[in-house]
Amino acid sequence: MTRLTFEQYQKFINPESVAIIGVSEKTGPGVFHPLQNMLKDGCQARIYPINIQGRDILGQKVYKSILDLPEVPELAFITVARTAVLGAVKECIQKGTKCLIVLSQGFDDADEEGKALQQEISNTIAGTDARLMGPNTLGIINALDNFHVSFVDCDTPPQASGVICQSGVFMVGAGDLTAGMGVGVDVGNASDIDYSDVLSFFGQDPRIKLVDIHMEGVRGGADFLEIAGQVSRKKPILVLKTGKSEIGSQAAISHSGSLTGEDHVFEAAFKKAGIMRMADFEEFQDLNKVFLTYNGLRGKRIGIITISGGAGIATIDALSQSGLEMACLSQDTLAKMQELFPPWFKVTNPVDMWPAGVKKELKEIYVQLLHLLLDDPQVDAVISIYGANKISGFDPMAVITEGLIAEAKRRPDKPVFPWVIGINKSEISKQLEQSGVAVGLPNPERIARALARLYQYHHEIKDRSDEKPLVFQDVQRQQVAGIIDSARKKGERILGGEVLEILEAYGIKVVETRLAKNKEEAFLTAGELGYPLVMKISSPQVVHKTDSGGVRLNIKNEAELALAYAEMLADISSNVPDARINGVFLQKYYPANIEVIIGSKRDEEFGPIIVFGQGGIYAELHKDVSFRLAPLTEKEAREMINELKSSQIFYGWRGKPAANIDALVDNLGRVAQLVVDFPEIVELDINPLAVGADDLVALDARAVLKLL
Amino acid sequence: MTRLTFEQYQKFINPESVAIIGVSEKTGPGVFHPLQNMLKDGCQARIYPINIQGRDILGQKVYKSILDLPEVPELAFITVARTAVLGAVKECIQKGTKCLIVLSQGFDDADEEGKALQQEISNTIAGTDARLMGPNTLGIINALDNFHVSFVDCDTPPQASGVICQSGVFMVGAGDLTAGMGVGVDVGNASDIDYSDVLSFFGQDPRIKLVDIHMEGVRGGADFLEIAGQVSRKKPILVLKTGKSEIGSQAAISHSGSLTGEDHVFEAAFKKAGIMRMADFEEFQDLNKVFLTYNGLRGKRIGIITISGGAGIATIDALSQSGLEMACLSQDTLAKMQELFPPWFKVTNPVDMWPAGVKKELKEIYVQLLHLLLDDPQVDAVISIYGANKISGFDPMAVITEGLIAEAKRRPDKPVFPWVIGINKSEISKQLEQSGVAVGLPNPERIARALARLYQYHHEIKDRSDEKPLVFQDVQRQQVAGIIDSARKKGERILGGEVLEILEAYGIKVVETRLAKNKEEAFLTAGELGYPLVMKISSPQVVHKTDSGGVRLNIKNEAELALAYAEMLADISSNVPDARINGVFLQKYYPANIEVIIGSKRDEEFGPIIVFGQGGIYAELHKDVSFRLAPLTEKEAREMINELKSSQIFYGWRGKPAANIDALVDNLGRVAQLVVDFPEIVELDINPLAVGADDLVALDARAVLKLL
Repeated sequence: MTRLTFEQYQKFINPESVAIIGVSEKTGPGVFHPLQNMLKDGCQARIYPINIQGRDILGQKVYKSILDLPEVPELAFITVARTAVLGAVKECIQKGTKCLIVLSQGFDDADEEGKALQQEISNTIAGTDARLMGPNTLGIINALDNFHVSFVDCDTPPQASGVICQSGVFMVGAGDLTAGMGVGVDVGNASDIDYSDVLSFFGQDPRIKLVDIHMEGVRGGADFLEIAGQVSRKKPILVLKTGKSEIGSQAAISHSGSLTGEDHVFEAAFKKAGIMRMADFEEFQDLNKVFLTYNGLRGKRIGIITISGGAGIATIDALSQSGLEMACLSQDTLAKMQELFPPWFKVTNPVDMWPAGVKKELKEIYVQLLHLLLDDPQVDAVISIYGANKISGFDPMAVITEGLIAEAKRRPDKPVFPWVIGINKSEISKQLEQSGVAVGLPNPERIARALARLYQYHHEIKDRSDEKPLVFQDVQRQQVAGIIDSARKKGERILGGEVLEILEAYGIKVVETRLAKNKEEAFLTAGELGYPLVMKISSPQVVHKTDSGGVRLNIKNEAELALAYAEMLADISSNVPDARINGVFLQKYYPANIEVIIGSKRDEEFGPIIVFGQGGIYAELHKDVSFRLAPLTEKEAREMINELKSSQIFYGWRGKPAANIDALVDNLGRVAQLVVDFPEIVELDINPLAVGADDLVALDARAVLKLL
Repeated sequence: MTRLTFEQYQKFINPESVAIIGVSEKTGPGVFHPLQNMLKDGCQARIYPINIQGRDILGQKVYKSILDLPEVPELAFITVARTAVLGAVKECIQKGTKCLIVLSQGFDDADEEGKALQQEISNTIAGTDARLMGPNTLGIINALDNFHVSFVDCDTPPQASGVICQSGVFMVGAGDLTAGMGVGVDVGNASDIDYSDVLSFFGQDPRIKLVDIHMEGVRGGADFLEIAGQVSRKKPILVLKTGKSEIGSQAAISHSGSLTGEDHVFEAAFKKAGIMRMADFEEFQDLNKVFLTYNGLRGKRIGIITISGGAGIATIDALSQSGLEMACLSQDTLAKMQELFPPWFKVTNPVDMWPAGVKKELKEIYVQLLHLLLDDPQVDAVISIYGANKISGFDPMAVITEGLIAEAKRRPDKPVFPWVIGINKSEISKQLEQSGVAVGLPNPERIARALARLYQYHHEIKDRSDEKPLVFQDVQRQQVAGIIDSARKKGERILGGEVLEILEAYGIKVVETRLAKNKEEAFLTAGELGYPLVMKISSPQVVHKTDSGGVRLNIKNEAELALAYAEMLADISSNVPDARINGVFLQKYYPANIEVIIGSKRDEEFGPIIVFGQGGIYAELHKDVSFRLAPLTEKEAREMINELKSSQIFYGWRGKPAANIDALVDNLGRVAQLVVDFPEIVELDINPLAVGADDLVALDARAVLKLL
């Protein structure tokens, strides 16, 4: 796939000449009219309005066709009815215009006829050197160069951010949703130009310091991740993913399949690429302001200076919830502060300035305390809480804002976050934002969340090491290819016992398993393996063995074996009447200690996702599962283990032996390598994998293949 | 304890005469000066300033002592240094003033000397008919009668709400934090007047429609719950509980003890009383506006009308997250709407008005669509999404607001929530709020959260039935009293085997357990009970039996019994060297199916809290636990079961038999009755309780007693 060139990108966002095909004769306030909007904005490009009437509009000469124009416009903007779009596109190509934006709706976003029309347009573009944005887009708003091509007029405050969206509201509403914007692009139906194209150029454009993405879905997932992974090292990428609620998920065969929702795949993809996913609209807005104001955050130790003890306590709650720490102030700082307070008050963090400020000049006290806080080497950032109640035209705490701004400018290495309480806070917030050194978020929860994101970007994303995925050389790739080929040739989609062979070929220790075709073979095999044993049914039709009565644990002797064999065959024939039984598998019995599931599910856009959780039937019950895209780095594998809410079970919890974490990391890496090497594996479960202090042993496994 | 009378309450919030004891001579803008504030506000009460100088201040005659006043002031407001407070209080009592507010700091909020001073003041008040608010309070702000006694000046917009707080910022900042306020009371250190007093009067005051509480902690929990339970049936009570992060929790002996944090107790208490706990400052603010604007919500089916398809999708996410439903529009509504759209667009909910509005008059289309939505019997409320970008002085969508207000007035039974996007939304929000029929919350997450709370209050709190707690008549109370007395006399704080007897006396089925004092007795007893068996150590020193090797399951025959006995004694003597061993308990073995824990922990303020969760060691690992205060109603017991994230395990999940839910409810009720009847039980665990399709059997239990 050819990518948009940087030259084309520049012509899309700021061309020297533009044709508007399908200009309406209806103008005036409140009419959605691109030409009117461009003229009002004082657009510097040469504008050529076109419609079939050819009568002047808003004092502009109107042409009947792009073919009539005196020059080749760099950009064409098509707003005609959907049935006329294909003709307009063809004329643009004929004229030689290489940048096309189709605003018209009613294509992939509508009925079958629309989908067919979009396909025809795509076919027409393919093979030319023209590129097309849309259809079903609100266009482009470039506030940095004052070039807007959109139905909707706009006076977004210019800011050093780029917005890529799939719904125009995120661009048109950027003044509110992201508190301003530099360049906004609505990729619409993304029939040609997509997220990856635009993201790549926002990465290169030095005027863009931050990228905002609104995403409902994406095509070309691998490309997108690669580009995002590069860009996120240079500038923060914030994504608001909508369409989370899954109306109906497809039936999955494996545990891993049913544990993995579409949203988990996006979550894993964003993590891989260093994209920060915003929890909601507010975080999206807050983090835009925060990343464009504060340059970094050295650590997690937060000092608080407050006019109210109660508000200080509420702030401690918020910090703790976001994983931040209360700074433990140095003795030197505390001693200097204490001099400003009455003796009965013992100063600590949060620094409650009221007992000092109620008797002295508030501003003086405040600046002294904030100065001491910021200079304490044990403080990485400060939250400053004060009031904004203007009474009879006078705000008793207004003096604080000046002091805050001066101190924040003195120490640009330590963010100062004001929390201003009171009905006049919007004035103060404006004053703060104009200073360029502080953002006035409205409550401690949002402040703490923003601080945690600042930390995350500067410590975990921006300078992350370029760790290579785990690759094991000792894997037997040919052997696995043979097993898979043979199964596919037989038309077997679901693999059972063979999966243990596959895992073994990839260096994962598996329980020794023998197939016994009948009762006599079972006794012989049992004698060789030794008791206690596990017996499992071998039948392609039995998918959930435990549920169907096809598993017996801890068989201790021949008598128990005879009984278990008879019962199992009876259970299966009653629970899965059409089961074709190949016999029973016999394995050495490992008593349940810690059991986990390692699995995988292949996503069409992003490839295989790795699933890790508690084993047995409990993974689904507790949904205590972690996800990453394959392949895995060692760091990612460790994160997967520690992300489980129940991860303490691996570290010697309540009498259980500590697990061999290195071996778990190794196994996760090997599974990831396997599913990357064999795209034919669409679902995989190792369930359970018995986790011991030394050894890990896969006790059962299943895979689902893509059929030929 | 005597409660504040309604007459006294009225004198506190709006007296005819007030003394201010400790008026400062320093006045002017920015000085925290109660007299100055009162004069500015045009206070209607007769004001008597008092200080030891006795020189006029702000043109007011100043007295040297309250004893010099020409009348008995109804209210006295004391702001002197902490050492002078006691004297001032005594003079007030001598004068005959019955309502006292002490603003001064440095008491329970400070050092040991302060604590002693506060105790002296409390002793002075006790036995008089005076009542005291504070110390360490910012006072009272009564915006309904324009009477403020506070250091901090205030121009809070009057609103039909009452605020009770423990930190003045929630009262002084109410204009911002709760979007206005009627009467605000800071109970401060609550040495006398407390939450319950004020809440009771807010319940009776007809001008107060909604109560806001900020709480760090509370004393007199039972009183508070009773009063709150009455008030919450008449008006919503919103609480912002701060101080959630637990720095260090006390060591607990039982599982239930360690599972129950202080915050769980508050959570359970609020549920019991119908108090709605706000997640954060934003919800606190939003719900104030919402409850004072919308009268109710009939159901959960939400219609959406939107200018942007993408914003509609984001709103679906938010509704789904808050447990609301997308309305399924009636055929009639859909057919009428479709006439307004181009044929390629198939209208549905969310109703995307863009394809219709882009070609016709927006207002006309909008009002038609909103009208149809509101009149659809399958719609309970509407979210209306539109833009607010004023360009060249003109907002193309401003017309929508008028239509929205008119329609909202036409159908006051169905809330209409606008979501306005764009940089000019604050103007539109003001216009909406002034209409009194709609609140402009800034994003779909906050709108959905507010709708869910409206539903909760009107369907689950306001008209909740007055269900009586479960009470079982077949309990053997005397027998339990005997067991507890005998243990306490022996100084036994931790009970093991006896707890099963206690449970049995309260109608809970327990596993038959026999104590065998030595190996020979064990063989005899085993023969009588029949194999398979469970053996457990009997020793007061062994607290965590499983962890110490004091439990053996599934002992199948004499040989296994002999081995298990020898191993257990060896394990215990090495793991708990100081254990005094009474012998072993033998029980019939119930193979693990579903195991739960039912437990309790007594809270000093709120009494016993009941704990329910998955049994075995997994309750603590997964923290999948529900809590309610005892006693339990049937409804509460059912809620406890269904609140578990893993509750599906009780309903026939993956081959497990469905549990006998009625029996579980019964057992929960009996445990609650037991711990209410016996306050001596400070902690209790039934762990595990084996849950079967028919029977429930307590397999092990433990209790911690309060020592005599």
